[in-house]
Amino acid sequence: MKYLLHIRFLGTAYHGYQIQKNCPTVQAELNRATEELFGFPCDIVGCSRTDSGVHANEFCCTVSQKGKDGISFTIPVERLPAAMNVHLPKDISVFFAESVAETFHARYDVYGKEYLYRIYDAPVRNPFEDGRSLHYPSRLSESAIAAMNCAAGFYVGTHDFRSYMAQGSKIKDTVRTVFEAEVFRDGDCVVFRVFANGFLYNMVRIMVGTLLAVAEQKYLPEEIVRITESRDRCAAGMTVAPVGLYLNRVQYRNPVLEGDCILLQKGE
Amino acid sequence: MKYLLHIRFLGTAYHGYQIQKNCPTVQAELNRATEELFGFPCDIVGCSRTDSGVHANEFCCTVSQKGKDGISFTIPVERLPAAMNVHLPKDISVFFAESVAETFHARYDVYGKEYLYRIYDAPVRNPFEDGRSLHYPSRLSESAIAAMNCAAGFYVGTHDFRSYMAQGSKIKDTVRTVFEAEVFRDGDCVVFRVFANGFLYNMVRIMVGTLLAVAEQKYLPEEIVRITESRDRCAAGMTVAPVGLYLNRVQYRNPVLEGDCILLQKGE
Repeated sequence: MKYLLHIRFLGTAYHGYQIQKNCPTVQAELNRATEELFGFPCDIVGCSRTDSGVHANEFCCTVSQKGKDGISFTIPVERLPAAMNVHLPKDISVFFAESVAETFHARYDVYGKEYLYRIYDAPVRNPFEDGRSLHYPSRLSESAIAAMNCAAGFYVGTHDFRSYMAQGSKIKDTVRTVFEAEVFRDGDCVVFRVFANGFLYNMVRIMVGTLLAVAEQKYLPEEIVRITESRDRCAAGMTVAPVGLYLNRVQYRNPVLEGDCILLQKGE
Repeated sequence: MKYLLHIRFLGTAYHGYQIQKNCPTVQAELNRATEELFGFPCDIVGCSRTDSGVHANEFCCTVSQKGKDGISFTIPVERLPAAMNVHLPKDISVFFAESVAETFHARYDVYGKEYLYRIYDAPVRNPFEDGRSLHYPSRLSESAIAAMNCAAGFYVGTHDFRSYMAQGSKIKDTVRTVFEAEVFRDGDCVVFRVFANGFLYNMVRIMVGTLLAVAEQKYLPEEIVRITESRDRCAAGMTVAPVGLYLNRVQYRNPVLEGDCILLQKGE
């Protein structure tokens, strides 16, 4: 028996999701909480890594008994969120849990992930936004946001995103498919939303740095095409801080989505 | 010369606004920051006290040189927010500053203050709401919110609010005028907004406890009238936690508002 947990976390206090020695991580908290709850050590497999300070509105991970298949957990799945939250710190919570097949894999079965990047654009910093958004110290005009949104549109499609990968990353296959990308105002923040089948290291943060350069008229929106085609990290903008980044949604493959996927490929 | 600072603070780390020995307070931070900035100790007078853990979207205080009148500050008022913020911690910021008359008093010249109380109503706690709202562990229905809003309407007017004052408070005059009071949904939260000429100790938090009792059908909305008229703390609901409370707006007297005030009194 395997459970899929849907969790939310404020990443401020953690050195990312992935377990590391001598550092607080989200996975270490999940390991501890599941062992306390079930009474035996569990295997936790997450949908992706996240960087230090990055947040999640939805992050998914599977829980199964370490080294065993087909174990029966004694807690009904519908009671799992409340039971887990008793053992988790206040900055992590399980909001939904479901049973999945033993063959289900939290990372390999991902169809797509959606990230949000929040930019607080005001001259004066806001205590309520500290650690939760990038502070950009001047108001982005409607035309600047329109230019960013136009530029973001050029990310959509299947491209080699090497220009938006941190230098030193050893990934060979740098082609990814961006299904949706947009920039819009949400109250006091400007938000970049991107939904893709996968992301390179720092990809969203470099995309945002590039979009801010578009807002500052360093590039025209259509220059995104040239930047992407150059496959050169130096052609793109700076890597913005992790504080504004949120994993927002994890979409797994299922019959409906596999259909969508085929349609998308046909359309290209 | 006297400055009026408009500040925002996340109250989580502070034992309220008012300075206390051996406790972190917002006023202590303002004392330190102004002395660092101007090079001499300043008198800071706030618009009100706040409890431990209470937040402010707008809090106002005056700054003048300790024991002196008519001192000339060397920093132009328009540069004061940025200059102050360099010396303030991340959970406090000055967002606006203006020059006021020497006779202006940050507390006595208040015409009205607006508070918000945020209730996060969902079965599972949310890490992003921790310390920033009351977690009410079930969804409040539209009809429950309508009942709360109807009940809140009975707070409007000039009443003796003794029923909504913490026991042990020594205030004699417990009559206050509530100008506006409403309950509405704002995304994932239900919000109580109240604008009044003054508040008794714990008044907003006891009002919210009473409104939640209305949501739970322990009282009918119109029973607010009886609860208020009883002048009995025991007739009202519980005092909810400080975490959801925000001082949202401070309105000072000016010719326009004095006119409004007269109209309000005439209308009663």
